[in-house]
Amino acid sequence: MKKPLILVVNDDGIFAKGIRNLIRIMNDFGDVVVVAPDRPQSGKGHAITIEDTIRCDRVIVDEGPQQEYACSGTPVDCVKLAVNEILERKPDLCVSGINHGSNSSINVIYSGTMSAAIEGCLEGISSLGFSLLDYDSDADFSESESYIRKITKQVLDNKLDISICLNINIPKSIEGKLLKGVKVCRQANANWEEEFERRVDPKGRTYYWLTGNFVNYDKGKDTDEWALDNHYVSVVPVQFDLTAYSSISFINKLLIDE
Amino acid sequence: MKKPLILVVNDDGIFAKGIRNLIRIMNDFGDVVVVAPDRPQSGKGHAITIEDTIRCDRVIVDEGPQQEYACSGTPVDCVKLAVNEILERKPDLCVSGINHGSNSSINVIYSGTMSAAIEGCLEGISSLGFSLLDYDSDADFSESESYIRKITKQVLDNKLDISICLNINIPKSIEGKLLKGVKVCRQANANWEEEFERRVDPKGRTYYWLTGNFVNYDKGKDTDEWALDNHYVSVVPVQFDLTAYSSISFINKLLIDE
Repeated sequence: MKKPLILVVNDDGIFAKGIRNLIRIMNDFGDVVVVAPDRPQSGKGHAITIEDTIRCDRVIVDEGPQQEYACSGTPVDCVKLAVNEILERKPDLCVSGINHGSNSSINVIYSGTMSAAIEGCLEGISSLGFSLLDYDSDADFSESESYIRKITKQVLDNKLDISICLNINIPKSIEGKLLKGVKVCRQANANWEEEFERRVDPKGRTYYWLTGNFVNYDKGKDTDEWALDNHYVSVVPVQFDLTAYSSISFINKLLIDE
Repeated sequence: MKKPLILVVNDDGIFAKGIRNLIRIMNDFGDVVVVAPDRPQSGKGHAITIEDTIRCDRVIVDEGPQQEYACSGTPVDCVKLAVNEILERKPDLCVSGINHGSNSSINVIYSGTMSAAIEGCLEGISSLGFSLLDYDSDADFSESESYIRKITKQVLDNKLDISICLNINIPKSIEGKLLKGVKVCRQANANWEEEFERRVDPKGRTYYWLTGNFVNYDKGKDTDEWALDNHYVSVVPVQFDLTAYSSISFINKLLIDE
């Protein structure tokens, strides 16, 4: 039987510890091709490069069997280039991550990691985004591994509906406390309460840094935030159809049937 | 009665003809504050600036009564800065555009214009994204105007549900053929079939330009593509909850109940 072809991408850049772990795991499941940003691209959402050129060059980062390409573009550019220029056939799986930091709740729309998975899904590929709730560049991914292996196997064996991908978040390891398992969830209603840190440059001009606190307004026990707070791995099926179907009749009344 | 406070943003940059038209129209509805990118930011999706500083300076572009700020960040950064740093109170309305080019169907997730409207919605503001199906920088916005006025009035009078914003696309004017009215629609199942144009730089290294063709796979007459093809203004209610609720039980079976 032909080995599965697996595309690996991320947003922290091709040298991040998270993607190196994910590549190592995926090498056990199939033929791996990595197309990842040549530098950190966090918070790039679904951005694509249309006003500029894109570089994408073959690189060797470690001694694994995978083929690797470092790309100057966004995570979504990486998926588009992989599918349309680099890969000889459509991959059987697209995995993104392992992100250093949470992509739960509303973070899904800011996340380059998840946008790459959504783009994979748009291309008709079963796609998974993995994130660990630890921003440390030297984060400990060891407890994640068995969950990533189990989910990957299930999805390779069964395929996903082509209109969804999975947003998988994994709690940070706590010594003496094992992960409790997997919960399939909805996206919690939570958001960032931003503050901008205003500073003055040496020439006297103002500039800003984006900062903020994440606030969960949602008390539901069926949310990703609840699962993560309770030391479960959260899995949210994510769709790219943004239509708010339940609002169509209200908007019809508002704009048409006056 | 207090005049409404209206935030105007776009992704084509503060000097684009589309936003200048939108500002002129909005000046008739309330007190207008513009916070828009200082250069074109098309295709930036929901990107935010987290690895770099942001500039945002008061500017005067024309003689209107609006207050204007040019921002070095993405369209979503503009909304965050406006709400958290610039405006003294939460605006009554956030309008984004008028985009030069379509944001129908899947374009909603790549679009800086629509991501700014979605961000406004996330901040709890009634938010509208307007796009004209004409990429010309000197596009003719005259036929759009009565529709923009009508939709703006209805939304200011009635408010939107805080979990949705509206994606409004307007067909390009055709001489001798009036727009037929407004259709409330769902996002069509359509996508880009990308091609990358591969070139070689003067030093012999390969680089790429993203190009492609938009292909509509959806025959439904309830879609934005159908409405636009039939010379209607399309209005799609858009949500930021990406959970694919109808897939939760399938994913539960796949991952949990083995």
